[in-house]
Amino acid sequence: MAARRKATTETSRLAHRASGTAAGNRMVPEETPVAFSFAGTTHAVMMASPADFEDFALGFSLTEGIIADSQEIEAIEVEDHGAGIDIQIRLKDLANTRFEARRRRLAGPVGCGLCGIESIEEAMRSVDAVSASKLTLDAEDITRSVKLLSKVQPLHQETGAVHAAGFYIPGKGVVMAREDVGRHNALDKLAGALAKAGINGASGAVVVTSRVSVEMVQKTAAIGSAFIIAVSAPTALAIRTADEAGMTLVALVRGDDFDVFTHPDRVVLGVAKHVA
Amino acid sequence: MAARRKATTETSRLAHRASGTAAGNRMVPEETPVAFSFAGTTHAVMMASPADFEDFALGFSLTEGIIADSQEIEAIEVEDHGAGIDIQIRLKDLANTRFEARRRRLAGPVGCGLCGIESIEEAMRSVDAVSASKLTLDAEDITRSVKLLSKVQPLHQETGAVHAAGFYIPGKGVVMAREDVGRHNALDKLAGALAKAGINGASGAVVVTSRVSVEMVQKTAAIGSAFIIAVSAPTALAIRTADEAGMTLVALVRGDDFDVFTHPDRVVLGVAKHVA
Repeated sequence: MAARRKATTETSRLAHRASGTAAGNRMVPEETPVAFSFAGTTHAVMMASPADFEDFALGFSLTEGIIADSQEIEAIEVEDHGAGIDIQIRLKDLANTRFEARRRRLAGPVGCGLCGIESIEEAMRSVDAVSASKLTLDAEDITRSVKLLSKVQPLHQETGAVHAAGFYIPGKGVVMAREDVGRHNALDKLAGALAKAGINGASGAVVVTSRVSVEMVQKTAAIGSAFIIAVSAPTALAIRTADEAGMTLVALVRGDDFDVFTHPDRVVLGVAKHVA
Repeated sequence: MAARRKATTETSRLAHRASGTAAGNRMVPEETPVAFSFAGTTHAVMMASPADFEDFALGFSLTEGIIADSQEIEAIEVEDHGAGIDIQIRLKDLANTRFEARRRRLAGPVGCGLCGIESIEEAMRSVDAVSASKLTLDAEDITRSVKLLSKVQPLHQETGAVHAAGFYIPGKGVVMAREDVGRHNALDKLAGALAKAGINGASGAVVVTSRVSVEMVQKTAAIGSAFIIAVSAPTALAIRTADEAGMTLVALVRGDDFDVFTHPDRVVLGVAKHVA
């Protein structure tokens, strides 16, 4: 059974305002457990917006390093069980063998059977350098990418409460965007949509409405983009990881202002005055 | 080795402003993998602010239902491994037996070995009703709780980029607060701090700076509070879960305005005019 659900719901609530208190309705985002199963058993369960399941499954498989290429997936089956969505991902022979070897080592993403040190090392897995991308952006590209992303966020427009991840290509604008209640999920869905459309991650910048944690940098590196542009702030670990991966991390994009935290050489600016 | 780290770091960045571009410094929050091990193997790894580790371990154990009471913990050992923090939680006999039975069933929180349906059921575990609490709040309590929480967020004041969870008791104000880069972690740390201080969760309201996902409601129910008050919006699943648990979910608290999504009977308002 293919899953098709509404990503938003109208709910009643009591609105307390200076002018008085009144009952009324408001749109809120849906949230559903989505289980990813590889080779028959669950690998992860995420709370996610019930939309774009195939993109989510493909993108998660790519950004978590389970597959190197979308061709390694044999089939994606999405089943709606009421309480949640079960996505069965069947890998082709070689990818399946690789995955089962990894599972034997890890027994799941949070390392049941692993000691703490091994689990920490898995969480901090090394990130591929994004040196294949020769992309540069100017200040207008950066501020425009965020403005354009804000125009393709229908769920957010309806609810004011979901994250978005988009892909910006200079001269083309935001060519792809996905939304989700979880910022990692939005980025995974974007990764899947890009792969399905055959868009090379090195050709543009990842743009997100959220903060930048280390996982957002890890996933952007897996997409192959040399840029992550964020509306909100980065963590120190995200900055260090982006720096090591050769990725340009731009954050706190507010109107025409922004901060470049790593590899500013890819940002073409006017005459820069350097103040200590 | 007891862990003691800084929760923020000063980083250099290029600030692009209308007035020009200049290099300068900015404070950003740290983020560290924290592994929780029970009975010797890892149960979960979280990316978290490196602070309040004992509160985090105790609170996570309580809100995830691993223990029913802080007395069930024999010892919490925090070790800093450089790449991350390993927290070994030793449970007393009965709790340990119960945990190992659960582990055999689940093999970790994401259910390695489980099928998708079982994993979804685990994620949607039933929530205890909060009927033990007889707490009621008026409109001023609600708006004051958020204003008071904003005064005890030192990490956020420094970085503008972390979440907070606080505990508000009418007449006493925000008696406890914790911050973290992750909103679930902030709430877990609060749960641990409350338990350590012997503060009954039924005596006050949980106040959070973030959105309300279903997991925030599950954790608030585990704390035993009948109120979750949030600055941002709830998901539809969070609303349904709060409704079933008998919890009053107040969200979108902005200045003196707020929305009550569930069980408004606990909110004492002036004369309410009901508009369809």
